Amino acid sequence: MNDWFFEKTKDHYQFGYRITAKLFEHTSAFQKVAVYQTAGHGKMLCNDDLIMITEADEFIYHDMIAHIPLFTHPNPKKVLVIGGGDGGTAREVLRHPNIEKCVMVEIDETVINACKEHIPQTAVVFDHPKLELRIEDGVAYVANTTEKFDIILIDSTDPIGPAQPLFGTDFYQNLNRILTAEGIVVSQGESPFYFQDLQLHLAKITHQIFPIVRFYNYHNFSYPGGTWSFAFSSKKWHPIHDFSAQRVSHSGLDFEYYNAEIHTAAFALPGYQKKQLTGLQKDGDES
Amino acid sequence: MNDWFFEKTKDHYQFGYRITAKLFEHTSAFQKVAVYQTAGHGKMLCNDDLIMITEADEFIYHDMIAHIPLFTHPNPKKVLVIGGGDGGTAREVLRHPNIEKCVMVEIDETVINACKEHIPQTAVVFDHPKLELRIEDGVAYVANTTEKFDIILIDSTDPIGPAQPLFGTDFYQNLNRILTAEGIVVSQGESPFYFQDLQLHLAKITHQIFPIVRFYNYHNFSYPGGTWSFAFSSKKWHPIHDFSAQRVSHSGLDFEYYNAEIHTAAFALPGYQKKQLTGLQKDGDES
Repeated sequence: MNDWFFEKTKDHYQFGYRITAKLFEHTSAFQKVAVYQTAGHGKMLCNDDLIMITEADEFIYHDMIAHIPLFTHPNPKKVLVIGGGDGGTAREVLRHPNIEKCVMVEIDETVINACKEHIPQTAVVFDHPKLELRIEDGVAYVANTTEKFDIILIDSTDPIGPAQPLFGTDFYQNLNRILTAEGIVVSQGESPFYFQDLQLHLAKITHQIFPIVRFYNYHNFSYPGGTWSFAFSSKKWHPIHDFSAQRVSHSGLDFEYYNAEIHTAAFALPGYQKKQLTGLQKDGDES
Repeated sequence: MNDWFFEKTKDHYQFGYRITAKLFEHTSAFQKVAVYQTAGHGKMLCNDDLIMITEADEFIYHDMIAHIPLFTHPNPKKVLVIGGGDGGTAREVLRHPNIEKCVMVEIDETVINACKEHIPQTAVVFDHPKLELRIEDGVAYVANTTEKFDIILIDSTDPIGPAQPLFGTDFYQNLNRILTAEGIVVSQGESPFYFQDLQLHLAKITHQIFPIVRFYNYHNFSYPGGTWSFAFSSKKWHPIHDFSAQRVSHSGLDFEYYNAEIHTAAFALPGYQKKQLTGLQKDGDES
C-alpha cells in the first residue's frame, strides 16, 4: 500500500501523510475509527477521517494539555479526563507522582481498543493502577457524578459528532460544579487562525463561568496549520502569576516539548489572536 | 480553474491550497517563479514550486524576521536584506522611523517584478525612498561591499538553487565583516522538526563566528508543519537580556503577530529543539 491520507480544512487547505498500511478500521455507534501506518509520522489515529494523533508528534499535544495545569495547581490530587481515548493525556497526567487518581471518561471503546492493539505508545496508560477508565458519555458523567476534581482536561475532537455537547454552556456549568474550589479546566481550544469562530464560542462560555480565563498555544504538526490552542479556565490559580519554574525543575520530570520557559511563553498570543479574544480573557483581578 | 497546489516535504508529508488562477509564471536564470490566486490564502508566491508567501499569513514571517532584531538593537540605522524579493521584510524594516537606509539585494528581478504586478501588499515597499534595491548576487555583494550595517536579515529560501551559498561559512564570515561592532544577523533558520539537519548546520556556522547565537520560533501556516525558526546571531546585544518591552509600546507601532510578549516567548524552545541545539546556542557570557 502506498497512498496518501489527506485532511481538508474549509475546502481551501489540506495536508496529508503518506500511508503504507491501514491497520484498523471500524465504524462504531459514534464514528469511524481508523489507524494507519504512515511513512514519516509513525502510526496515526483518525476519527471520522480527522487526524487525532500521530506517534511522531503526539507528545506535543499531550505535554501541553496536561503539564500546564498540573504545574499551575500547587497540589492536584484528582484529575478527570473527558475523551482522550488514545490514552496520551492520562499517560502524561500520571507521570506526576502526586496524582492519586485519574478518571478518564471516553464514550467510544472502539478508540481505546484500536490504540491498545496498535498504538501502545499512548495506550500504555491503560494498565496504570491509578487510572479509572469509564466507557460512558462524558456529558452525562459530569452531569451526574458526585466526585470532585482538582483538574479537568477536555481532550475532545472538534464539535462535530459525539463531541458537540462538549462545546456547550451546560457542560461547562457542570464542570464548574464538580471542580474543587481551586480547580482548573483545560479544554481543546481549536485554531486561532482557521477556526477562530469556535475558539471565540468557547471563550464566551468559559468567560461567563470562571474568574480566570486564558488561552495558550502549542504547535504540533498533525493539526491543520500547526498552531492550535487550549482554553485555560481556573477558579483560583493563575497560569503565569502562580507558576513557579522551580516546581518543574524540582519535579525531576523531563519532557520532549514542555518546559518552564514554554509554560509562560505559551500564553504569549500573537497580535491577531489577542485582538480576537479582546475582553474574553481575564486574570481574576476584576473588581 | 479549480485545482490544488501541493508542496511535498521529504516524500512523506504534503500540504496545499486550492488555487483558482495562475497569475504569473516565468522561469528566470535562477528559478521558476509563479504567482497563484488561492481560494483561502490570498495570492501566493512560489519559487521552484516551494511556497514563499501567501497574502493571508505573510505578516507572520515578516514581523518575526524584522521586529525581533529591530527591537533588540537599541539604535539601528542601516539594515541589509539579502533576498526577500517579495518586499515584505523591507516593508517591515522601514516601518521603524529610526532606520535611515535599507539596502535590499535580490538576485532575481523576476521575483520583484512578479510581486510588483501581483502582490502589492508586500511590493508596496519598492516605492519607499529609504529603500536601496540592488539586483545582484547577495553572496558577491557581502564579499565586496565596503558598507557597514547594524542589522542584516537573510531572507532566503531553502539551501537549494540560488540560496545554497547563503548557508556557507564564507558567507557568514563576510556578514561578520560588514556588520557594525554592535551588529545583529537574523537568518531564515529552517524547521526544527522536518529540517533539523539544516538548522544544526546553520547553528554550527553561526556558533563559530558570533558571541551570541540563539534560535527563535514563529508559527505561520504556509511552511511545512507551521513551526519554523530564525537564527539570531549578535556581536553585542542579547535578544532577551537587552530587550525592553517599553520600546515596543513607545514605538507606537502595532503588529498583527509581533508584540513584546511574543518577542521573549519566541526564544522559549520546545524540549526536542533545545536538545538538538545543545551546546550551539550561546549568550555571550562565555569566559
